[in-house]
Amino acid sequence: MKLVKVHVTLKEGVLDPQGKAIQGSLSRLGYDHVQEVRVGKYLELKVEDDQHIEQQIEEMCRTLLANPVIENYEYTVEEGVTS
Amino acid sequence: MKLVKVHVTLKEGVLDPQGKAIQGSLSRLGYDHVQEVRVGKYLELKVEDDQHIEQQIEEMCRTLLANPVIENYEYTVEEGVTS
Repeated sequence: MKLVKVHVTLKEGVLDPQGKAIQGSLSRLGYDHVQEVRVGKYLELKVEDDQHIEQQIEEMCRTLLANPVIENYEYTVEEGVTS
Repeated sequence: MKLVKVHVTLKEGVLDPQGKAIQGSLSRLGYDHVQEVRVGKYLELKVEDDQHIEQQIEEMCRTLLANPVIENYEYTVEEGVTS
């Protein structure tokens, strides 16, 4: 079993209203030295061992986990997770 | 300026319907060797330099960014981001 960690983030230049809202809330709470907030997704997948795992993760990211038009994705594959 | 990277994840034992839905979709797309999907948030904050930054990030996580009852959070503070 492998543990795959995927980060999905908005591309630079894409507006992030959720991040803006969080920044506004932080500012109202007194944390006004926070200049920018960007929000992304973080996914952890437990995947059975497979020799094509990297290629499959790449496909999953492109087709379902991220929207490649507006989002970037990065992943790492870690060994030896016990289910 | 510092770059703070925050990971917010559901605690173990807390149900993750979004993760379940993604796993179901992956399975229908043919990726049925994915055993489990857990979805979390990933936030990037640009914060002005401050000597109490770690303490403030800790407070922000507890009060706004995460729900400590059902979520765990982790963060790293990186140096030298140009705004």
